[in-house]
Amino acid sequence: MLNERNPIPVQEAIAKVRSCYQTGQTEWVPLTEAASRILAIDITADHHVPPFDRSPYDGYAIRSVDTTGASTDQPQQLEVVGHIGAGSVYTEPLTDQQAVRIMTGAAIPEGADAVVMLEDTTALEIEGKSYVNVMKTIAHQQNVSFKGEDVRQGEVIMKKGTEINPGVIALLATFGYASVPVAKKPVVGVIATGSELLEVSDPLEPGKIRNSNAYMVMAQLERAGAIPHYYGQLADDLESSIEKISAVLEEVDFLITTGGVSVGDFDLLPEIYQALEADVLFNKVAMRPGSVTTVSTTANKLLFGLSGNPSACYVGFELFTRPLIDHYLGKVQIGLYRTEALLDADIPKANPFSRFIRGYYYLQDQTVFVQLAGKDKSNMVHSLANANCLIELPGGTAGFNKGDRVLIHRLGE
Amino acid sequence: MLNERNPIPVQEAIAKVRSCYQTGQTEWVPLTEAASRILAIDITADHHVPPFDRSPYDGYAIRSVDTTGASTDQPQQLEVVGHIGAGSVYTEPLTDQQAVRIMTGAAIPEGADAVVMLEDTTALEIEGKSYVNVMKTIAHQQNVSFKGEDVRQGEVIMKKGTEINPGVIALLATFGYASVPVAKKPVVGVIATGSELLEVSDPLEPGKIRNSNAYMVMAQLERAGAIPHYYGQLADDLESSIEKISAVLEEVDFLITTGGVSVGDFDLLPEIYQALEADVLFNKVAMRPGSVTTVSTTANKLLFGLSGNPSACYVGFELFTRPLIDHYLGKVQIGLYRTEALLDADIPKANPFSRFIRGYYYLQDQTVFVQLAGKDKSNMVHSLANANCLIELPGGTAGFNKGDRVLIHRLGE
Repeated sequence: MLNERNPIPVQEAIAKVRSCYQTGQTEWVPLTEAASRILAIDITADHHVPPFDRSPYDGYAIRSVDTTGASTDQPQQLEVVGHIGAGSVYTEPLTDQQAVRIMTGAAIPEGADAVVMLEDTTALEIEGKSYVNVMKTIAHQQNVSFKGEDVRQGEVIMKKGTEINPGVIALLATFGYASVPVAKKPVVGVIATGSELLEVSDPLEPGKIRNSNAYMVMAQLERAGAIPHYYGQLADDLESSIEKISAVLEEVDFLITTGGVSVGDFDLLPEIYQALEADVLFNKVAMRPGSVTTVSTTANKLLFGLSGNPSACYVGFELFTRPLIDHYLGKVQIGLYRTEALLDADIPKANPFSRFIRGYYYLQDQTVFVQLAGKDKSNMVHSLANANCLIELPGGTAGFNKGDRVLIHRLGE
Repeated sequence: MLNERNPIPVQEAIAKVRSCYQTGQTEWVPLTEAASRILAIDITADHHVPPFDRSPYDGYAIRSVDTTGASTDQPQQLEVVGHIGAGSVYTEPLTDQQAVRIMTGAAIPEGADAVVMLEDTTALEIEGKSYVNVMKTIAHQQNVSFKGEDVRQGEVIMKKGTEINPGVIALLATFGYASVPVAKKPVVGVIATGSELLEVSDPLEPGKIRNSNAYMVMAQLERAGAIPHYYGQLADDLESSIEKISAVLEEVDFLITTGGVSVGDFDLLPEIYQALEADVLFNKVAMRPGSVTTVSTTANKLLFGLSGNPSACYVGFELFTRPLIDHYLGKVQIGLYRTEALLDADIPKANPFSRFIRGYYYLQDQTVFVQLAGKDKSNMVHSLANANCLIELPGGTAGFNKGDRVLIHRLGE
């Protein structure tokens, strides 16, 4: 039993987990399933975008020299020798005094160097032939979208580690990625412990509460981009618990347990760690909530012993497990985004230890404000639902006042 | 053919779509599939949380009167008459000079009114009986988590329209929602038009580009919480196009087409609207990009004719389609979150029309800054990938300078 525990600072604990970071594998998924995944390779442009000079407007492809001096009063008359929609190609080179009617997105024909917009022209027919009167002088290269002006061939257009948003999907489609190389999601096992726990569908009983931590952690895992597998609750006896954890470790990339990590008389995990000969990285962190968070490795796999207290469990996940998943996925951003905000409430209580309080930040008048998400006793599940950040209050500080600057960790981005 | 088009202001166009808002239905999904969905009913607490007075620490449940005057020098000795872990219940009422060893989360036994923490005690055994020396005077109700202090029975704990985050999942688990009432996702059809379009897996051909809009819009739909169904590209002839659109409208809640809404000679959609006797809400908006965005209703269903230009398509979706989906899902927030930001770049170009430029906002020094996401010609798919907001520049304004305040629409939140 680990009755003696030495709390270590939060940053030291995070660094200890960092030393165990692993990177996951790559898998290919259809483009239609790639949204929100993490790109596993740099994407290089294999062609220019646009792939050819094209017209950004409906109008006429012309030789700009032919429009010199053209105006509403003195239009220049050109012969319309062709008519092309987007996707069609006019193959004859344009010569003197010729024009080709062209639609938005269509390729500029050879010989033409500019486009006159439809509204600067009038069409006419003379002896069965089509003509256009150009009523404006057009400059060389006017109204042309140039080959490669958006993306140059060979350019790295999207870096490995990028989250695939709708704009990235458009780029991948443009470059022919019908399937996309993305980071494989880690499979993370979740086991709940605690003899006070009922399952969600059970009716309440005296002295018992429903298991909420396992489901909460599974939602946190999903939000972080992992695949959660729920393995139910641990039985009360040591022998079968050790067996179960060993078996689950074979099937998952990491394992999270909730509860059972205190030094309470019924907390089995310290003994289980010993039986598994796990290397305990830390079993106490100088922070509130979540001080009993325990992280260990066994059989080359990380085992997160999160607290049975909902808030402590939540914070322990976001601070310690989340960065590991980010790294596994090869993300550019490791861990929650941190930023400064102006406190919109007093927090009078002193902080002997670092505290992570559930907050709600909002943007107003070009400023980042943060307020408390609700009651913040560590057992208060209610305020977790309203939180969109954690407010970090460093240890060894007195209370904070409205208007003070604080560091926030933005959740779920 | 609708050759005459009168542009209407953006807000008027949004209001026209708003007049067609419909609300979707409710479906029940397992708790493990409820994350990120939208809650379809108010959730009321059917019991107190905690459901009973409980101990927040490992220690001893006691009668505080028995500890009067206790100190390290003068400990008060109490008999330990029981030992309860979380989930167990001690059923005998405590009487004078008695204590019950209690673990975190366990119910306070009848007769006890406080808890003394383990570290303020020493255990001893006398003639086979267990005793504890309490070395601190404990106040009435000290170290007790009270029944209902987190959530009161009958309280509305979560409003209809809330997005289900991990904290909400914890609450739903606590209140026994093994399945959860959520807003049914709308099914939205996507059809691409444009004879210049190749499919994603096709090799490039002269004058042609790959279809990126349909895939981009599908990712936007998913991000907004809808289910996209891709129906491929529209054939070039009017008759079969009308048939296809009629057939698809039977299967979907809304329909999006990309391309074909200009007045170009090959743009079929205006004729299709006419053939379907669609009520065209608007077919031109005083904005850039996306001025040709067309929204119509037919057979009581909305049909979004988005531009074939990627940026215009993207903006048209976020401004007009997205709010409709939000409303369908019963969300509290309709449309993108808007906020003010300080411009971190010059935008010298004047704005005869309202412009929506792709931006990248970031939080620094408690301030919201925004910069341009990249090149911003309307055909530039590249900058869409880097954008996390749209910068709105009102029509009739001159250029903007670094440091100016601008309105941003935050994407994907």
